[in-house]
Amino acid sequence: MIEQLTHFDDKGQAIMVDVTDKTETKRTAIAKGTIRLGRPAMTAILEGTAAKGDVLGVARVAGIMGVKRTSDLIPMCHPLMLGKCSVDFDIREEDCEIDAICTASLKGLTGVEMEALTGVSVALLTIYDMCKAIDKRMEITNIHLCKKTGGKSGTFVGDAAYEEEQPTND
Amino acid sequence: MIEQLTHFDDKGQAIMVDVTDKTETKRTAIAKGTIRLGRPAMTAILEGTAAKGDVLGVARVAGIMGVKRTSDLIPMCHPLMLGKCSVDFDIREEDCEIDAICTASLKGLTGVEMEALTGVSVALLTIYDMCKAIDKRMEITNIHLCKKTGGKSGTFVGDAAYEEEQPTND
Amino acid sequence: MIEQLTHFDDKGQAIMVDVTDKTETKRTAIAKGTIRLGRPAMTAILEGTAAKGDVLGVARVAGIMGVKRTSDLIPMCHPLMLGKCSVDFDIREEDCEIDAICTASLKGLTGVEMEALTGVSVALLTIYDMCKAIDKRMEITNIHLCKKTGGKSGTFVGDAAYEEEQPTND
Amino acid sequence: MIEQLTHFDDKGQAIMVDVTDKTETKRTAIAKGTIRLGRPAMTAILEGTAAKGDVLGVARVAGIMGVKRTSDLIPMCHPLMLGKCSVDFDIREEDCEIDAICTASLKGLTGVEMEALTGVSVALLTIYDMCKAIDKRMEITNIHLCKKTGGKSGTFVGDAAYEEEQPTND
Amino acid sequence: MIEQLTHFDDKGQAIMVDVTDKTETKRTAIAKGTIRLGRPAMTAILEGTAAKGDVLGVARVAGIMGVKRTSDLIPMCHPLMLGKCSVDFDIREEDCEIDAICTASLKGLTGVEMEALTGVSVALLTIYDMCKAIDKRMEITNIHLCKKTGGKSGTFVGDAAYEEEQPTND
Amino acid sequence: MIEQLTHFDDKGQAIMVDVTDKTETKRTAIAKGTIRLGRPAMTAILEGTAAKGDVLGVARVAGIMGVKRTSDLIPMCHPLMLGKCSVDFDIREEDCEIDAICTASLKGLTGVEMEALTGVSVALLTIYDMCKAIDKRMEITNIHLCKKTGGKSGTFVGDAAYEEEQPTND
Repeated sequence: MIEQLTHFDDKGQAIMVDVTDKTETKRTAIAKGTIRLGRPAMTAILEGTAAKGDVLGVARVAGIMGVKRTSDLIPMCHPLMLGKCSVDFDIREEDCEIDAICTASLKGLTGVEMEALTGVSVALLTIYDMCKAIDKRMEITNIHLCKKTGGKSGTFVGDAAYEEEQPTND
Repeated sequence: MIEQLTHFDDKGQAIMVDVTDKTETKRTAIAKGTIRLGRPAMTAILEGTAAKGDVLGVARVAGIMGVKRTSDLIPMCHPLMLGKCSVDFDIREEDCEIDAICTASLKGLTGVEMEALTGVSVALLTIYDMCKAIDKRMEITNIHLCKKTGGKSGTFVGDAAYEEEQPTND
Repeated sequence: MIEQLTHFDDKGQAIMVDVTDKTETKRTAIAKGTIRLGRPAMTAILEGTAAKGDVLGVARVAGIMGVKRTSDLIPMCHPLMLGKCSVDFDIREEDCEIDAICTASLKGLTGVEMEALTGVSVALLTIYDMCKAIDKRMEITNIHLCKKTGGKSGTFVGDAAYEEEQPTND
Repeated sequence: MIEQLTHFDDKGQAIMVDVTDKTETKRTAIAKGTIRLGRPAMTAILEGTAAKGDVLGVARVAGIMGVKRTSDLIPMCHPLMLGKCSVDFDIREEDCEIDAICTASLKGLTGVEMEALTGVSVALLTIYDMCKAIDKRMEITNIHLCKKTGGKSGTFVGDAAYEEEQPTND
Repeated sequence: MIEQLTHFDDKGQAIMVDVTDKTETKRTAIAKGTIRLGRPAMTAILEGTAAKGDVLGVARVAGIMGVKRTSDLIPMCHPLMLGKCSVDFDIREEDCEIDAICTASLKGLTGVEMEALTGVSVALLTIYDMCKAIDKRMEITNIHLCKKTGGKSGTFVGDAAYEEEQPTND
Repeated sequence: MIEQLTHFDDKGQAIMVDVTDKTETKRTAIAKGTIRLGRPAMTAILEGTAAKGDVLGVARVAGIMGVKRTSDLIPMCHPLMLGKCSVDFDIREEDCEIDAICTASLKGLTGVEMEALTGVSVALLTIYDMCKAIDKRMEITNIHLCKKTGGKSGTFVGDAAYEEEQPTND
């Protein structure tokens, strides 16, 4: 049996699904993604973060503002009243990789997975933009949902590291 | 010697770099990225595309509209007058992977790499959104620049497949 | 006696009216409008819908996204958390006319008539845009409210066809 | 023979068509549409315009701002640098009808028909919004292109009244 | 002891603070600011307001629409469902000064100070824009919070004139 | 004689003025404004800037992004292709005042004064937002145009300090 794509009605037409009868609960989602950089870009970011030219500071602001644009960007996403949002970075210097982790929460009728994933995407694209003059071979990779709590479907853990963990910044 | 991040001035403050003295030329960028799905989501998309519930049609529209929001999302990106844009998908059914390829062009003062990369990201996030009810373990991966032509820095090819290739839909 | 325009205060200044003391109820609105096309454009759409080049699929996505921009476009409209939205088309081939029908719902303090009407307008403008290379004499016409339920003023039926009918896609 | 929808490539996929090789010329478009009101709403607008509560003043601002959002709303529309815009109203009191006329111009690579049509639509929706508390049976109708000049396809006149006429406010 | 900036976590990273556990109450904020004009600009505005060319009418619409864009503009602001908004002007002809006063209310989890202040700023910038052809020495000044009610921190009065006063237009 | 408000036509109706026949030149504008803070907020910002919690870094990003939203916010402003943008801060610790200075440039048909003024306003509102938990008596003041070059009206200097000065970051 083929599972149903809920964003289409029985005529196969795209719809924004009905959430008006869902229950208002606290919902949280954490998503993560990675950008792979060359050594010179990695060094430039680290120098900048330490001293001046704060690439990750700009990317954090962009990520948080991007979260608020999710329903403008993703056609079938519901507009929602985000209650909390943060973007963290994990720099793995030796691997020349930076992880962006976005946590989004609200008390509402619908989940915030897409918000967290959009925040990660915009934060990583911003790092790319600021480094592209010195590196054209960067790669944005492994964007996925780490954890999701609240709502009818309950808790989902997609990343072993989040089994026990609380959302950051709570 | 450490290379310079051009999006910061000599005090280390983020700036939108000056392009007012650059030459207006035709510039094109092609970017690509991939979403990895489970088998049920892949089957649902293929069924939908064949018959009804056109996930990729919605994702294409979202990607093209996302390209036009690039300078709203990425803090140091210049607003620009996009001259052309397309989003293609390459379905690799056996691998349960779909590639999104975005081509952007303009005649202008500044390049369109970030536009192409943003188009890919928004298209893939839209596929994610429409399949998330049946698959929470999808992964968006390998977003990168395939090719770039025009501008002072000339042609860049980041993907062997684009060595000889013309931009699609030209 | 002249009826009051509620969007103006007693000095005649435009205001966004106060809804903070209204009751949260489920509210739905259905609006409809029509585009009149020449025969060649109608044929091109029908061919496209059947085989490829899905004008109505693009217009549906545009309409749903347009609904979410209502309070950005209409000065005195309240921002609101749309709970559901769909856009349907009714093709009357012999008359060379296509109806767009938009249904919007939410659980909230204020109605969604303007959202449904905006969705219809944007969907029809998108059809116009995609056909304008082959037809410059199209006409968008008869945009009106079909039905409205919920809220203090109760049910309104503006279109006989909606007397008994339920909102589509519910 | 079936005419081609230019917003689709040869695989039937929606694209933003390439304008990068078009010639920059001065282009103007004039569009018009009508709202039909009941007598009480018409009277309230006339009273307001004469004394206070300027419905048409608000609708004019909304229409001009709406013109600038065209490429955000219509998926395949190019962003463009509007050079001029105005919205006029023609009140036909006896018929209880108000026409909105929007003129848009630019020096650029692509036409401004969709901008003029969007301006008309948003202006009329704004009138609707401000009168809907006293009239739920209004109708927005007859939105069409009156005239278009500039560009490869030259001058088009869709409305006899514009045969000889110059764009307003020039 | 240094007071805490609540928009940063304990690692000093910017966050959108968590409001999901706050209580939904009615909250109102009133903000005010002033534009200082030269005599010719002041006269032009007064002539316009009396007869035609309604600068303040346009600025009012811009201010109200600007209020709705607050969370798009201010990075750490929560999106919220504004319940009411008005912009008033106080013309002090002899001083060549115009005050803009913005009142915003909602029933929600978070306050509307930034909304009221943004409304004032956008209204004053709009007056500036419309007068800048005849006056390049205007100054926007004294933008501040007059009063705030609701929420955990209770009532704040920043302006003696608002000690006893009710929010306008309530 | 009363000077003309150029944003109104001869019927007194607001218009976006025609720039299609203007000459494309390089144009620059510098604007400045000030926020007055209490001592605790000033100390918190200085601590944050030195160590962590970079209020001014967030405000700079907000200001630059705000510049790009100018034509969305100010009704009669033309959309334009900003070529360069920077936001600087000048901290006057003893006075508990921070100046924001925004420089905007483009090669185009119309000036960027409103862009520079909007950038200053959004940067200062962002500082306000981030400090409002510890200070409700802040004041945004003295927003004005410092200098403007390019265009038919030539150079304007509104601030003695900019007589000899070059635009920053050029």
